[in-house]
Amino acid sequence: MTAPQIDHRIGAAAVTVLDTEGRPLSHRDVVVEQRAHAFSFGNIGFELIPMANGEAGPSTANAGLWFDVFNTATLPFYWGPFEPERGRPGTERLRRTAEWFAAHGCRVKGHPLVWHTLTADWLRDRPADEVEAAVRARIRRETADFAGVIQAWDVVNEAVIMPVFRNERHRNAITRLAWERGRLALIRLAFTEARAAGPAVTLLLNDFDMSPAYECLIEGVLEAGVPVDAIGLQSHMHQGYWGEERTLATIERFARFGLPIHFTETTLLSGELMPSHIEDLNDYQVPSWPSTPDGEQRQADEIVRHYRTLLSHPAVHAITYWGLSDNDAWLGAPCGLIRADGTPKPAYEALRGLIKGEWWLPPTTMRTDAAGHVEVRGFYGEYRLSAAGRAASFPVTLPRTDVSLRLQGS
Amino acid sequence: MTAPQIDHRIGAAAVTVLDTEGRPLSHRDVVVEQRAHAFSFGNIGFELIPMANGEAGPSTANAGLWFDVFNTATLPFYWGPFEPERGRPGTERLRRTAEWFAAHGCRVKGHPLVWHTLTADWLRDRPADEVEAAVRARIRRETADFAGVIQAWDVVNEAVIMPVFRNERHRNAITRLAWERGRLALIRLAFTEARAAGPAVTLLLNDFDMSPAYECLIEGVLEAGVPVDAIGLQSHMHQGYWGEERTLATIERFARFGLPIHFTETTLLSGELMPSHIEDLNDYQVPSWPSTPDGEQRQADEIVRHYRTLLSHPAVHAITYWGLSDNDAWLGAPCGLIRADGTPKPAYEALRGLIKGEWWLPPTTMRTDAAGHVEVRGFYGEYRLSAAGRAASFPVTLPRTDVSLRLQGS
Repeated sequence: MTAPQIDHRIGAAAVTVLDTEGRPLSHRDVVVEQRAHAFSFGNIGFELIPMANGEAGPSTANAGLWFDVFNTATLPFYWGPFEPERGRPGTERLRRTAEWFAAHGCRVKGHPLVWHTLTADWLRDRPADEVEAAVRARIRRETADFAGVIQAWDVVNEAVIMPVFRNERHRNAITRLAWERGRLALIRLAFTEARAAGPAVTLLLNDFDMSPAYECLIEGVLEAGVPVDAIGLQSHMHQGYWGEERTLATIERFARFGLPIHFTETTLLSGELMPSHIEDLNDYQVPSWPSTPDGEQRQADEIVRHYRTLLSHPAVHAITYWGLSDNDAWLGAPCGLIRADGTPKPAYEALRGLIKGEWWLPPTTMRTDAAGHVEVRGFYGEYRLSAAGRAASFPVTLPRTDVSLRLQGS
Repeated sequence: MTAPQIDHRIGAAAVTVLDTEGRPLSHRDVVVEQRAHAFSFGNIGFELIPMANGEAGPSTANAGLWFDVFNTATLPFYWGPFEPERGRPGTERLRRTAEWFAAHGCRVKGHPLVWHTLTADWLRDRPADEVEAAVRARIRRETADFAGVIQAWDVVNEAVIMPVFRNERHRNAITRLAWERGRLALIRLAFTEARAAGPAVTLLLNDFDMSPAYECLIEGVLEAGVPVDAIGLQSHMHQGYWGEERTLATIERFARFGLPIHFTETTLLSGELMPSHIEDLNDYQVPSWPSTPDGEQRQADEIVRHYRTLLSHPAVHAITYWGLSDNDAWLGAPCGLIRADGTPKPAYEALRGLIKGEWWLPPTTMRTDAAGHVEVRGFYGEYRLSAAGRAASFPVTLPRTDVSLRLQGS
């Protein structure tokens, strides 16, 4: 097959370079380089939380690898671990983490505000009205406490299965609330509370269910006027890479609603695949699940195909890979981009080769014309132009950017 | 397991029997008998259309068997066969059929107003606006033309799969409209048009998809204020009887919305089952699919279990069995209650044994007390009391019926 087209990710800027006095810099060599992607290339930041909080740990070595490729960090707000004792949330630790990522130039996303798994166990036996009030208060608290530092929230996670979730002996409070009130009522109250934090934050509905069920849910949610900003699609591919055709068909079904699509949770394995007969991936427990040389080659090949496919569809605005290293990976699966020994897998290098290679403008010498013009083409994002020890920044955006840059001290 | 409880289907009437002058008929034998069920025990009436229209055919022999068990007829309004040439609908023939069923004391249901399968081929290449206008006009026409004689409509059939239906080389106009406008918008326009015929008709959303997708769709539809009166659940069990547990769990998920549940299309086979790996039942084509003695015993057993289970849940208000004889059955499957040679299968007798036996009050002699009272207990429905050549009718309804009957000439 031919490589997917991603020209719609590339823009141009007509730059007029001026010296510090504002005169065109004619016939001069300047160096242009990309500094950031507009597209969100994300990963979970869970492993770096200790480091962000000044604690020693294995995370230090991995942080460099993280920041070298990714620009958006997803942080864990699982209600149970976040607030194991009612009224004592782990706000400070995550706030420091979020600020640390922001200081590194990253966007930060919170995951999730409402989910039946890993929810607060102290709500399990409380009446529905109290559960609803607690859910509302928790959403108001988190969105307020992280205002300005978290730009996106997975507001409700996996609502399709939520009211009928059956993986526990004793039903959790969120499943029960979704059953009693309905998915749509729960989604509306959650988004209404989250929206109270302001219009600047991106609110996502997120699901792993790629069947028509999720389409039906979205139709109802949008019809009801719930303020959803983007549709989150999970792609944990523990049972094998979906392939280009299925991926594009899936995007097409959800792009129909006219909202941005975020691939919120992408996993590709570098070891054996999970058998296809497993329905709830959580049911698959193995004592050891190693990364293998063959698996690593396959993962590298597939991550390139997956990212190329996703970027080829204009509706996709963000991709979050779900895991940096194989340490503490969900289900123990070898889904990381770094081996347990800290060395990067081929998939890491392959992804870096796209995001910071093929899809990136490295420092490039260009020559201005008599009027001081250069034309810069590249992926949407932030760029820097320098000449003779002075520099200025500019964006490449849609529509075509037209900008005059007065160089400042670099 | 213990037999499901269906006491909630049984009511009582306190009847005071009066003579023609209005005096209590004391200490007298009277005969009480049930005349009709309030519950809708339906079947398709497709086979009887020729007979209803005065044409000779095999249907005559089967009509007696039909009326002996069923009280609600579903008639076929598949758009393609109903209106093969635009502007020339088969209204007259179906109207005569509906009136004929009504004259036999039956309720009549139309199926379906909007469905992607068997739809009008002459719309296939028309623009979406024209398709929408044609859908609206068709619904207005049918509901108006059959006002007073059809009491229930499957307004939209199989909306979950509708926009993503992929069983044709060239996409039909209804699938295309559902894709472009969305399921919910299409459902709303269809129900809005159907509702224009008045509030007395029961409007159903009907689907075979028992997954959370249909729940999600219903949540959105109800949230959007679409005037759905009842939820239709299909139960074509070509791949095997669902069993009591799955059936009740399914009902429970859909009863949650507070609307009556109609089992709109029930099939149980009296031959080999379809292999479980077939996803779209239409894909299964065999040259011959005979009814077998073992299969007929199994079908008889299962139909009793199925009907008992459905009646045990208070949310279920109607059951339509999908087929009378094996002639012209969908897919050629042996799903009828009458063999191709016209003899009743054990399932027919078993179902009759419930509907007109165990769940029915046959003519029963009772004795009035000094005040002319008798107490009648039985399934909700219409009853008749007679004494000395005179008679009167009364209902058994919820709440308990209190009625004085003045006997008239029988």
